[in-house]
Amino acid sequence: MTISDLGEFGLIEAISAALPRGDRTIVGIGDDAAVLAAPDARVVATTDLLIEGRHFRRDWSGPADIGAKAAAQNLADIAAMGAVPVALLVGFAAPGDVTVAWARDVMAGIAGECARAGATVVGGDTSSADAVVLAITALGDLGGREPVTRSGARPGDVLAYAGVLGESAAGLALLEAGLTEPAALIAAHRRPAPRYAAGPEAAALGATAMIDVSDGLLADAGHLARASGVQIDIATARLPAHPGLAAAAAALDHDSAPGRDAVLDWMLTGGEDHALAATFPPGRELPSHWTVIGQVRAGQGVLVNGNQMTGRAGWKHFGD
Amino acid sequence: MTISDLGEFGLIEAISAALPRGDRTIVGIGDDAAVLAAPDARVVATTDLLIEGRHFRRDWSGPADIGAKAAAQNLADIAAMGAVPVALLVGFAAPGDVTVAWARDVMAGIAGECARAGATVVGGDTSSADAVVLAITALGDLGGREPVTRSGARPGDVLAYAGVLGESAAGLALLEAGLTEPAALIAAHRRPAPRYAAGPEAAALGATAMIDVSDGLLADAGHLARASGVQIDIATARLPAHPGLAAAAAALDHDSAPGRDAVLDWMLTGGEDHALAATFPPGRELPSHWTVIGQVRAGQGVLVNGNQMTGRAGWKHFGD
Repeated sequence: MTISDLGEFGLIEAISAALPRGDRTIVGIGDDAAVLAAPDARVVATTDLLIEGRHFRRDWSGPADIGAKAAAQNLADIAAMGAVPVALLVGFAAPGDVTVAWARDVMAGIAGECARAGATVVGGDTSSADAVVLAITALGDLGGREPVTRSGARPGDVLAYAGVLGESAAGLALLEAGLTEPAALIAAHRRPAPRYAAGPEAAALGATAMIDVSDGLLADAGHLARASGVQIDIATARLPAHPGLAAAAAALDHDSAPGRDAVLDWMLTGGEDHALAATFPPGRELPSHWTVIGQVRAGQGVLVNGNQMTGRAGWKHFGD
Repeated sequence: MTISDLGEFGLIEAISAALPRGDRTIVGIGDDAAVLAAPDARVVATTDLLIEGRHFRRDWSGPADIGAKAAAQNLADIAAMGAVPVALLVGFAAPGDVTVAWARDVMAGIAGECARAGATVVGGDTSSADAVVLAITALGDLGGREPVTRSGARPGDVLAYAGVLGESAAGLALLEAGLTEPAALIAAHRRPAPRYAAGPEAAALGATAMIDVSDGLLADAGHLARASGVQIDIATARLPAHPGLAAAAAALDHDSAPGRDAVLDWMLTGGEDHALAATFPPGRELPSHWTVIGQVRAGQGVLVNGNQMTGRAGWKHFGD
């Protein structure tokens, strides 16, 4: 059965039937708007628009992965403020010949990722369209903490990250080359697994600035540096070895083994893993899933191993 | 200059530069997420997806009207809960050859409608797409009032509405026929002007249920009736005369003068004016901009002048 057979109201019922109700939900799906408890007396809100052919391909990712990834990217933005994700609103548009089962699987992927983050879907909208569109808004709760913005990094701070870097980019390169191994990287491209809890944790640990790594570590460190009016120097020697990425580089015949350049390129410029990058005051004791990889200084821009870069791939022109 | 010349970050700067900052905004545009004050300790949230060719046409509406209408439809959903609109998040996608001026005018329309409602734009996202997409999320504040849902109507209540009915549908019919008069109705189609303040007002007056009339009065009264488990009987004689609608019916040569059938059809089944329809306990004194047009009874469904209807245009088969 296709979604045009079912019509808008039928589709909403079909995709919302299985959704759990959150304990913060005062009025849920089915009214003009949702009402949520916001005991902190502040609400954190972010929205992202994902368009078929630009952000995902139906032939490269299944519906549950597409939904999970769309949810993850919004939930990670909430975590990057130091907040706990609470709720999602989902706008879903698709061609009329998309099956109800496919649409329901997208929603199952969204709901599954919400559950991983502790959030629930509280509202949405559906429409027909020539391409699949997912418009997701996430709401979060600061739980009494101050929000961690991009602008608080200070000279002397260290830069650290939690999560993974480069896996989604490597997975995409494998898909583009028609390869199916290493399968873990292709899975990481299809469905990133951000460490949502690391966001509130970083806030509690005194993080001075934080960002969701969606454009790539260098680009997003650049956003932190610009917003904070500081310079950030990333030491590539601090990046952990990643045998999976090295294997992918070898499979793609990028560079000679161990494919160090391709691996670094993925880790420094690949987005979509939704690692969190944060700056902390010097000497702060961090849990082991936070890896210190750089130093904040007076100045501007992002350096790699002390060298100025120009442009997105500029780091390649400087040795490590 | 087109939006593809400018790129995503340039476009965000161009369309967000002129946006005012609201007094509820703790962290505004430019971080991973916005942070808003929610002094009521609850937040009202709704989202809508508008797709070019489905919800608007660039050759029938200018960019400021398209933006204002998209904002209005979300802001009205907030008002329909008895809440005051506070903030909007805006997802905007468009083909790369759309001009920056056009995109900026969409945002100006959104910002203008926000100002009319007392809200501000606090965040958003941009993307390229083959058709223009507007994905808007509105957040609102209950100010200590209980939310007015669709499910509280009780037998004995009256049904009333605030705003206008049928103007947008008449304007669309004029546009479809290639007519340009009455211009006020075409303007009403391009840019509805919901009475946002009537929502919180109805809540304060003890409204038992409320809905934003977006699908047409009969359909939306049907949603109230179903959610509340009651029957609603609409008396067409209570609907005020509307010379503009009668003139439009005459211009379109619908029926014989005074075109009563076409006028009633627009008022009963036309959506997009975003009037508010609410039920109130019997005997409640209402301000003059609320017009009582029906009665709530035990039973189910919507009657027109005491007659059962079947289907969307079913009222036509019963006299008034």
